[in-house]
Amino acid sequence: MASIPVGILGATGMVGQQFIALLADHPWFKVDWLGASQRSEGKAFSEAAAWRLPNRLPDDVATKIVNAATPGSAPKLMFSGLDSSVAGEIEAEFAKAGHIVVSNSRNYRMVDTVPLMIPEVNAEHLALLDAQGAQQGWKGRIITNPNCATVVLAMALAPLRQFGLESTIITTLQAISGAGYPGVPSWDILGNVIPHIGGGEEEKIETETRKILGSLGHGKIENHPVKLSATTTRVPVQNGHTGSISVGLSEPPTAEAMIEAWQSFRGRPQQMDLPSAPPQPIVYLHEANRPQPLLDANRDGGMTVTVGRLRPCPLFSYKFVALGHNTIRGAAGAAILNAELMHREGLL
Amino acid sequence: MASIPVGILGATGMVGQQFIALLADHPWFKVDWLGASQRSEGKAFSEAAAWRLPNRLPDDVATKIVNAATPGSAPKLMFSGLDSSVAGEIEAEFAKAGHIVVSNSRNYRMVDTVPLMIPEVNAEHLALLDAQGAQQGWKGRIITNPNCATVVLAMALAPLRQFGLESTIITTLQAISGAGYPGVPSWDILGNVIPHIGGGEEEKIETETRKILGSLGHGKIENHPVKLSATTTRVPVQNGHTGSISVGLSEPPTAEAMIEAWQSFRGRPQQMDLPSAPPQPIVYLHEANRPQPLLDANRDGGMTVTVGRLRPCPLFSYKFVALGHNTIRGAAGAAILNAELMHREGLL
Amino acid sequence: MASIPVGILGATGMVGQQFIALLADHPWFKVDWLGASQRSEGKAFSEAAAWRLPNRLPDDVATKIVNAATPGSAPKLMFSGLDSSVAGEIEAEFAKAGHIVVSNSRNYRMVDTVPLMIPEVNAEHLALLDAQGAQQGWKGRIITNPNCATVVLAMALAPLRQFGLESTIITTLQAISGAGYPGVPSWDILGNVIPHIGGGEEEKIETETRKILGSLGHGKIENHPVKLSATTTRVPVQNGHTGSISVGLSEPPTAEAMIEAWQSFRGRPQQMDLPSAPPQPIVYLHEANRPQPLLDANRDGGMTVTVGRLRPCPLFSYKFVALGHNTIRGAAGAAILNAELMHREGLL
Amino acid sequence: MASIPVGILGATGMVGQQFIALLADHPWFKVDWLGASQRSEGKAFSEAAAWRLPNRLPDDVATKIVNAATPGSAPKLMFSGLDSSVAGEIEAEFAKAGHIVVSNSRNYRMVDTVPLMIPEVNAEHLALLDAQGAQQGWKGRIITNPNCATVVLAMALAPLRQFGLESTIITTLQAISGAGYPGVPSWDILGNVIPHIGGGEEEKIETETRKILGSLGHGKIENHPVKLSATTTRVPVQNGHTGSISVGLSEPPTAEAMIEAWQSFRGRPQQMDLPSAPPQPIVYLHEANRPQPLLDANRDGGMTVTVGRLRPCPLFSYKFVALGHNTIRGAAGAAILNAELMHREGLL
Repeated sequence: MASIPVGILGATGMVGQQFIALLADHPWFKVDWLGASQRSEGKAFSEAAAWRLPNRLPDDVATKIVNAATPGSAPKLMFSGLDSSVAGEIEAEFAKAGHIVVSNSRNYRMVDTVPLMIPEVNAEHLALLDAQGAQQGWKGRIITNPNCATVVLAMALAPLRQFGLESTIITTLQAISGAGYPGVPSWDILGNVIPHIGGGEEEKIETETRKILGSLGHGKIENHPVKLSATTTRVPVQNGHTGSISVGLSEPPTAEAMIEAWQSFRGRPQQMDLPSAPPQPIVYLHEANRPQPLLDANRDGGMTVTVGRLRPCPLFSYKFVALGHNTIRGAAGAAILNAELMHREGLL
Repeated sequence: MASIPVGILGATGMVGQQFIALLADHPWFKVDWLGASQRSEGKAFSEAAAWRLPNRLPDDVATKIVNAATPGSAPKLMFSGLDSSVAGEIEAEFAKAGHIVVSNSRNYRMVDTVPLMIPEVNAEHLALLDAQGAQQGWKGRIITNPNCATVVLAMALAPLRQFGLESTIITTLQAISGAGYPGVPSWDILGNVIPHIGGGEEEKIETETRKILGSLGHGKIENHPVKLSATTTRVPVQNGHTGSISVGLSEPPTAEAMIEAWQSFRGRPQQMDLPSAPPQPIVYLHEANRPQPLLDANRDGGMTVTVGRLRPCPLFSYKFVALGHNTIRGAAGAAILNAELMHREGLL
Repeated sequence: MASIPVGILGATGMVGQQFIALLADHPWFKVDWLGASQRSEGKAFSEAAAWRLPNRLPDDVATKIVNAATPGSAPKLMFSGLDSSVAGEIEAEFAKAGHIVVSNSRNYRMVDTVPLMIPEVNAEHLALLDAQGAQQGWKGRIITNPNCATVVLAMALAPLRQFGLESTIITTLQAISGAGYPGVPSWDILGNVIPHIGGGEEEKIETETRKILGSLGHGKIENHPVKLSATTTRVPVQNGHTGSISVGLSEPPTAEAMIEAWQSFRGRPQQMDLPSAPPQPIVYLHEANRPQPLLDANRDGGMTVTVGRLRPCPLFSYKFVALGHNTIRGAAGAAILNAELMHREGLL
Repeated sequence: MASIPVGILGATGMVGQQFIALLADHPWFKVDWLGASQRSEGKAFSEAAAWRLPNRLPDDVATKIVNAATPGSAPKLMFSGLDSSVAGEIEAEFAKAGHIVVSNSRNYRMVDTVPLMIPEVNAEHLALLDAQGAQQGWKGRIITNPNCATVVLAMALAPLRQFGLESTIITTLQAISGAGYPGVPSWDILGNVIPHIGGGEEEKIETETRKILGSLGHGKIENHPVKLSATTTRVPVQNGHTGSISVGLSEPPTAEAMIEAWQSFRGRPQQMDLPSAPPQPIVYLHEANRPQPLLDANRDGGMTVTVGRLRPCPLFSYKFVALGHNTIRGAAGAAILNAELMHREGLL
């Protein structure tokens, strides 16, 4: 069945483990190689790291020996869940050596020849790869998915571009898994809110969204002109980033048309029936108190973004709430969907 | 010492218990009368209700017999923590009978002759009481404090009026104690976010704030013209409502001047040295990740509003985070401060 | 496929919803009838109750009209998730009318002709049904599953009977879903422990376990002689009851033999390959810090009990930790497994 | 006022910060010296560490320069909240140099000339100090307080020795603050239970309790003969360790006499009226669902142990629940009470 060998960089971390979990029964990709820090090198995966997900660790991964994070024996297709402190160097090394690096790290997201992909939203941005090799001097390529909070916002905004999207303000309530492991100390977050997320989280949301929603012309991305303001907070939730969002539209439709725009939104992954593609990428929930992380983040394997509470905003056109699973749609699942798209586009 | 007898309506509820806790050592007011629903009538308080606060239940309150919520034996000064489903009728009955009802309920907040008070912000609104008796046909009076989330916002905005406050957008992250007891089922909120609070919470924030910040002229309140948009969410936090706020100012000052406006803000309670008045009503915290409910909500007995994270907003003038203790500054403590002000103004 | 119509009593409650979720794709049973309190009668299920599980509410159940909890149109096989305050009368009424009531309620568990079943442990107790009709004057029958904490304990003890099980002491750490909905107020449990569970929880564990582990002779159950002591506590966990257990054995085996007894334990459900039977009912986890509710309660659809931390006890023979999913293995899944067993035994 | 200068080793950690908070208004002791790891050396305290307690950081401590953890300029009386990985060496160095080290670390607790103190329980154990200097070759001395879970158990057991205390089994539900900072990752404990605490927690409870309850004879401690079995678990609670306890007594009294033994229990700290001594060290709560961490751990400044739910145990004489504040009564407050006792005994 699964005949394409893949490697995972940063395999022992939170996103690395999510890659392993999601690829356990993948019809195309088979985990064949694990890379992590020196501390883990040479150990069986199950000795190198405690398994921290409710999903069962596949036996064949448990016994696989962890490699240093250097090319060589690694397969061509590499997923990267590396921490950004090391991802820059390591991913470049793999790209130079001819690998396709499908990365969840932030390091290359804003490079002009690196696609920053949400396949439903901007599949055509893959064309940036044409110029990447020459520009960077790489035999291989790097493609990236957005920050875990950006995904939720960008997907919710994508169908609204047709209404003249001018401005967006968002306050996020983000899950602890977004900070990796060990991540947020329990002392800081149990029964608490931390109104700040380090690493430039708010700037990432503001800049990445414009690139994702941007249009491709003459081999380059022209950023979407939407003005964005983000405030990010951490809340005691395991998985699922929630956003309270207001949007200013130059041609605001009726609320019914807004909802219809979300409900009918489909992209290349749905057209191509990619294995990880949710049947309906954005689902509008009509209940007054939804979406909620505990009830909705796992919808369709965690790949669906749910939206609710659409109502007029006294300051903008509309306000609403959006939610997505941050380590699946916002990280490992996003990267896998990117790789599935590339495979079907013949780019692997 | 404490020589003014007071009664508490809704004494067994979350806010009622907070009244009891805050009045335990009050220099002026002494709990002399407890009123609750029929179920509790005739029982000692400690039998009528489980005590649910970490503070110790004062012995003299524990043994006090709970009365039906009707005037008669009740003292003139009444604090009301009644649920809004019954507060309308009961508070009116007490006002008619000549009592001063210092209410935390929403029922009369927007009545034009009822002061909606934050003593630091609009002490002069007490003048509305002059016309209230004739308008309502009451021998006594009702004065109110705002919704628990409104207080945080209105206090943070009050010092910004001088900079031409035009627009405000807020997303709140509200504690469970704001929903009373039994309130939010644990199944709904443990490890979760509920992006909706019933009872018109968002509308209350939008309308109450304009009245509170409004100016008194010719015995009437002219609402402040600020345009407001609120989204309210519930998070798994015991106490402390957090708000992510952006403000549009017609004459935006420097960030330093904004901070100085908050830090130097004082009102009548500080001038009069009222017993429950915090020394500095608004405190700006310079740490990048503050204010936080667990660390900051209890500051100065829960009567201080803390603000942090001031930075430019790409869509408005500035954005920041504000926090206040919802059952103290946002409920029982707010009402007690109102009563202290009235006492000193000779209105009791 | 699923050709046996079933009804659900108490369909809108926590256990009732779990029944609906677990039966959504059941190969034999099809939800055909919903019964609830008068408040819900005549409404479509989705209007009668908010759906509170992460699983999707099946469309055909959402639109089904909820009936009063009285026999008549109901199918023969009835699952009951009724609250014990009403289960006594209603279940008897259905049994009298000829229904097979597979109940999760406590009301009839200790009646001597009512089987209190864990199919892996005491499938032969079904024989009690022979005498039940005559004794109770019922055309139908009632069979029951244990209390949600009892199941975890009784399953962990069952394989130890061979070692001369004499005494057991358990302290439980129980999830909030065990209290139903709205159940435990969030104010009471968020960041807290409640060292008490009402409704005779500790007594239920002590008495039910002896019946479950008892032996059938001459059509009667002789209770197992094990002496039991239980302390029950509530902790802020969504699903999964954990028990800290010590056992006194008259013929204590080696630790390896204890573990092997758990690992190799199988029962009638495994032999018959019942649809809800976990492949291995008890799984021993060798990691030092397992089992944990968040990681292990959902194992094999929530039907597996996990055990860990086996070590000598200075006061008894051994101590260990056991965990099970309280609304699946400890409630709805337990009842469904009971019904599956009855179906295969030709008792439906 | 506070005229005795004290130093704090490990000042930036969880226990170190608790020392600072508790000493802020101490009538005798004044924080004069802070020691921490090299990373902090030479920085002002407020730059060396984020302050993580709801109490306000005293201004004079905030600006104090942190020293390396070596003697020299340090005052004679040193409190140590050092991690056990470094406490052994550093505390010995200070003792050698003539300091009185009042330590919360486990390293020297079981040394036969080191007092392991709960002043209410075993004040006479201070006599061990006589032989300590010669045995260890120290000019100064080290005295210790127990593990944070041991304190709760040992205090609850102390008044029961008169009834012939023979056996004790305990399952703890321990707060996250017991693991220090950053301590338990939120991913591991939010909505979860971890049925294991590293560092030999269970053994510490079993061995330390016997020493604490032991009797002094001929300058040596004879351990109490009680047989102990402990299971320790971590729960998502900020502060407060709860224990579910059964005790076997050779001369079991009535339940009333048990309760009276706890309620009337007093020790040297109460007789001497030490500043940190709670008026009643053990308080029995008659409510069916107490003690609870959130409601009871902070009683009397966190120095009181609360007990409840006394009832017969089918396997032992009685069972009950006990609770104490782990970073106050179980750590910093315990050490301060030790120092207060020494001061009054003329040992400083």
